[in-house]
Amino acid sequence: MNAPQRPPSAPLRPARRAASASSSIVREILKVTMRPDVISLAGGLPAPESFPVEALRAAFDAELRGEGQARQALQYSTTEGHLPLREWIAAQESARGIPTAPDEVLIVAGSQQALDLLGKAFVEPEAPLLVESPTYLGALQAFNLFDPAYRAVPTDDEGLRPQAIDAALARDARVLYVMPNFQNPSGRTLSRSRREELAQAARRHDLWLIEDDPYGELWYRQAPPPSLRAFAPERTIRVCSFSKVLAPGLRLGFVIAPRECIELLVRLKQATDLHTATLTQRAACRVLASGLLETHLPQVRARYARQCEAMLAALERSMPAGVHWTRPEGGMFVWLTLPAGVDAMALLSQAIERNVAFVPGAPFFAGAAQPSTLRLSFVTVPPPKIQAAVGVLCTLITEALGAAKESA
Amino acid sequence: MNAPQRPPSAPLRPARRAASASSSIVREILKVTMRPDVISLAGGLPAPESFPVEALRAAFDAELRGEGQARQALQYSTTEGHLPLREWIAAQESARGIPTAPDEVLIVAGSQQALDLLGKAFVEPEAPLLVESPTYLGALQAFNLFDPAYRAVPTDDEGLRPQAIDAALARDARVLYVMPNFQNPSGRTLSRSRREELAQAARRHDLWLIEDDPYGELWYRQAPPPSLRAFAPERTIRVCSFSKVLAPGLRLGFVIAPRECIELLVRLKQATDLHTATLTQRAACRVLASGLLETHLPQVRARYARQCEAMLAALERSMPAGVHWTRPEGGMFVWLTLPAGVDAMALLSQAIERNVAFVPGAPFFAGAAQPSTLRLSFVTVPPPKIQAAVGVLCTLITEALGAAKESA
Repeated sequence: MNAPQRPPSAPLRPARRAASASSSIVREILKVTMRPDVISLAGGLPAPESFPVEALRAAFDAELRGEGQARQALQYSTTEGHLPLREWIAAQESARGIPTAPDEVLIVAGSQQALDLLGKAFVEPEAPLLVESPTYLGALQAFNLFDPAYRAVPTDDEGLRPQAIDAALARDARVLYVMPNFQNPSGRTLSRSRREELAQAARRHDLWLIEDDPYGELWYRQAPPPSLRAFAPERTIRVCSFSKVLAPGLRLGFVIAPRECIELLVRLKQATDLHTATLTQRAACRVLASGLLETHLPQVRARYARQCEAMLAALERSMPAGVHWTRPEGGMFVWLTLPAGVDAMALLSQAIERNVAFVPGAPFFAGAAQPSTLRLSFVTVPPPKIQAAVGVLCTLITEALGAAKESA
Repeated sequence: MNAPQRPPSAPLRPARRAASASSSIVREILKVTMRPDVISLAGGLPAPESFPVEALRAAFDAELRGEGQARQALQYSTTEGHLPLREWIAAQESARGIPTAPDEVLIVAGSQQALDLLGKAFVEPEAPLLVESPTYLGALQAFNLFDPAYRAVPTDDEGLRPQAIDAALARDARVLYVMPNFQNPSGRTLSRSRREELAQAARRHDLWLIEDDPYGELWYRQAPPPSLRAFAPERTIRVCSFSKVLAPGLRLGFVIAPRECIELLVRLKQATDLHTATLTQRAACRVLASGLLETHLPQVRARYARQCEAMLAALERSMPAGVHWTRPEGGMFVWLTLPAGVDAMALLSQAIERNVAFVPGAPFFAGAAQPSTLRLSFVTVPPPKIQAAVGVLCTLITEALGAAKESA
C-alpha cells in the first residue's frame, strides 16, 4: 500500500512524564518473536488452547439476543462495573473465608488498568514506593508515569523478605507493591508465614499493600497460601485478572479493597475511561455464573503443570553447573541466574541469531539490576521446542562461560 | 443481602492529584435520573434504539466461530490496535480528502481514554492548557488529574473565537482542546472560516490542537465543515468515538494524529492498559467493513434530527422572554442561557422535586462559570415527555423571574 502524502509533524514537546515512557525492551523483543521461525520463551501470553471459546461465544450471543437486554448490554453503564459480576466476585472471595461485599469490588479493563489507577491514586512525584526486587515490569511502566522514587525490598529464594522492611526502608512510603503468587518474573511464591509478617510490617509502618495476583488460580498441585487480605484486609488492595482464567483479549480484571479505596478508584476510573465495556462484563459474568471455572480451571492447571515440567526437565538435562533457576509451583515463568560475568542482554542477541528469544532480567529491577538473570516462559511452547530452545541457551551459556574463563 | 463483617479501612492518604478527583455533579445527577419517574434531560446517552444490535451480534458470533480465529480474537494483541480496523479508519479519513495512513491511527477504549492519554502526553503540572468556555466536562475531569492551569478561550454564539488567541493567551501553552462539531455542552459548530483561523492561530503560537469529535457523524441536514486536520494536519490530534455511531457499551474509539504523536500515545497506552479489547475491535471492524454505516447513519441522523426538532419546538412554544438557547445542527445537546439572576443549580433542585433533571452549566467552565446556563439533552426522551419536561422548566423559570423582580 502506498503511504499517502503526509506533512511533517510539528515538534511534539511532550510532558516530562511522557518523555520518560520509553518503549519497553519486552515490546521490542516481542516484535522479534512474531517471526514464525523463532522459538519464543519471551512472551507472557497464556496458552490459547486454554480459552473457553465456545462458552464465551454462547455468552456473547445470549447477551445480544433479545432486544431489550441487548440494548442494555451495548449502552453506557456504571463506573463501578456490572453489579452481578461484582456480586459473583464478592461471593467467591467470601467463600474462601475472606468476607467481601460487592461495593468492595471495582471492575477494570484488565489488571494493567488497575495499576494505572493505583498509580494515580497513590504515587506522589518523587515520594518513595516500595517494590520487590525483581518486580513486575508492567507495574514499573504503569507507576513510572507518576514519577515515584522506588525503593527495592530485598528478596531471597522464597521471595520478598518482610523482615527487611525497617523504619528506614518504610520512611514516608505509603504503598508496597507485591505479587505473592508465582511472581512475574521470578515464579516465586510467598509462604504463609511471610504473608503474616508482611501484614504485620504493613501495620507497623502504616503501608498499604497492593497485592497483584494475576496467576493465583494457575497452581499446579496445591493452591497457594491465602490472599494478603486474609491477614491485613484493612490495607490490602487486591488486583486480579480474568486474562489467565478466561482470556486476555477481553481486557477484564478487578480490584478488591476497602470501600473507601474503591470509591477513590471509581472517581479516578470515571476520569480515565468512564467504565469497562458493558457487553464484555455481562458476557463474562454469564460464563462465570454458569460454573464453567469448576471444570475449566483444572484443565488449565494441568496443562500449565505439564508445560512447566517440560521446562524444568530440559533445564535439568542440559544446563551447565553454576546456572540456578526457580522451581515454580504455578504460573508461567522460570527465573534463571547465570554465573556472574555472563550478561543476559548479550546472551539475548546471540540467542535471537539462533532463533530463540527470552527476556533478560534487567528491566524487572527498579533499582540496581542483576545483569546475569533472565526470565523464561513456557506455557505456549510445545515441549520439543522448549527442549530445543533450552539446548541453544545451554550451548551459548557454556560458550560464554568458556570465554569468561579464558579472559580471566 | 447482609453485608459481611468488614474491618474499618486504614487511612487512605491519596496522592494530591487523586484527592482533587471529586465525583462529578453529572454523576450525582445521573443517579437521580435512574428513578423511572424522572424525565431526564441530563444524560449524554445515545438512543439505544439506534444501536445496530443484530449486526453486532452476528459479528461477535462470527469472530468466535472457527477455532483458530476465535483464539486470536481472545488473545493479547498490539497496543496500536487491530490493523484492519486502523486501515478502515485511515481509508475513511483519506476518502474525505485528508490523506491518512494506518500508522497515524491508534485504537482506544473510548474517547475518554484518549483524553487520559493526551493528559499524560501533554499536560505539565501548572502549565497552561487552552480550552473553550464552556467546554466538555469529561475532558476537564481527564485533564484535571495532570494538574493543568486552564486558560479559557472566549466563545460567542458561533463557538470558539480564534481571533481571541493572542500572544498573552497562548504564552507557554502547548495544547488547545476544542470540540468543533455540535459541541458538548453548547451544541455549537465552528464555521469553516473559524477552523481556518484556528489553524493559523495554532501555527502562529506553535499550539497542538486536540480536536474532540464524538458527534461529527450526527448531523441533521448537512455534514459539518472538514476536520481541523484539513487545515493543520501537522499539529491536529483528532479524537473520535464509535459510541454514537455503533454503541457506547463497546468502549471503542480512536485517535488520528501525526505518526510521532501516535508513537508517543502508544507507549503511554501500553503502560495504561496494554491494548484495547481484541474481540471488540475485531467485531466492530467486521461490522464497519460490511458497509453498515451507509444505511445505519442516515437512520440515526433522522432520529436525532426529529428529537432535536421536538426540543426546539417545545422551547419555542413555552419559554419566557429573556431565555436564549442554541439551535444545534447535529448532536445531542441544546444550551440554555437564562436571564441573569436565575441560578441553574437552584433551578435543578426545584426541577428534581418535580421529576425533571438537566445538567447546570457551571461544571462545564474551566474558569469563571456562568451560573445561569444549563444543558438539555434530547435524544433518548420521547417528544411528549420532552414537551412535559420543558413545560416544568418554563414554570420554574417564570416563577424564578417573578421572584427576582419582586426582590429587585
